[in-house]
Amino acid sequence: MITVLRLGHRAGRDVRITTHCALVSRALGAGECAIAGDACEEIVDSVAKVVAAWGGNFAARSEKNWRKYLRNFKGVKVHLTMYGMPVQEKIAAVRKAARGHDLLVVIGAEHVPGEVYGECDYNIAVTNQPHSEVAALAIFLHELGVGKELDAKFAGARVKITPSERGKNIEKK
Amino acid sequence: MITVLRLGHRAGRDVRITTHCALVSRALGAGECAIAGDACEEIVDSVAKVVAAWGGNFAARSEKNWRKYLRNFKGVKVHLTMYGMPVQEKIAAVRKAARGHDLLVVIGAEHVPGEVYGECDYNIAVTNQPHSEVAALAIFLHELGVGKELDAKFAGARVKITPSERGKNIEKK
Repeated sequence: MITVLRLGHRAGRDVRITTHCALVSRALGAGECAIAGDACEEIVDSVAKVVAAWGGNFAARSEKNWRKYLRNFKGVKVHLTMYGMPVQEKIAAVRKAARGHDLLVVIGAEHVPGEVYGECDYNIAVTNQPHSEVAALAIFLHELGVGKELDAKFAGARVKITPSERGKNIEKK
Repeated sequence: MITVLRLGHRAGRDVRITTHCALVSRALGAGECAIAGDACEEIVDSVAKVVAAWGGNFAARSEKNWRKYLRNFKGVKVHLTMYGMPVQEKIAAVRKAARGHDLLVVIGAEHVPGEVYGECDYNIAVTNQPHSEVAALAIFLHELGVGKELDAKFAGARVKITPSERGKNIEKK
């Protein structure tokens, strides 16, 4: 399973960005998003509503002790950071290392504590330019999944879209 | 040139998401981000500061009449929407159509006016699941650039990162 660990969530300011992180995690193949920060109940609830409607197995949850969680995680740990090694150089190694193991993808907000760089097996950059943890996560999961994650099916969906050249084709059960 | 047109920006609520959209546009090869909505001066300024420090040619700007701008745009118009056709099926056609032409990539917020679907040449979905316009934009530009956009150089940078396995290697002129 892929878990996304979202560090540095701040109530209020980060609600929308963190929600986007969780929804991207779900859409691109992760099984859960653990949010380090207080007052993220609103996000956990809104993501649960998305899962209930759109299907699949995914949950967002609060993680009160991310240091312990990160240290004790059994599997491959990847930290996405603009300071890291290019994703295009490292993705094959990450894919190989993660085969048959759980994968933790750590994404931060503005300032990530230094220990995260040391605790993770890979520090990976999606460009060394400043942009967005949402975008970095999306491109990383897309590269990890070799594009196959785009075709994922979500079991038990009550809402379903049929792709359309123009307009909207949406079905609700 | 690639222009990203960000629709539905709302002051306050959307400042961070729209800023992420603009920075992703820059990092992944677009030349400008036109923001439809009021009170986006703060974003335009903060993006200008990023460009001054990190280099390259890019600007965010306000677009007061997006309907006219969209209608009169000379080039290929792509709308990213969860209702559209799969990016993995359409990207080759978009790449071909955009060769030698300007490209407009339209991204919306929650509700995009119906006319956008008709006005654009392609309605493209990065999965038909709900997630994030930031992520959809990132994966679309990444697919459009066939990954080469990840190696882009930004001329005139005063701040530069050298990729690092651990920690931060940042140079400021």
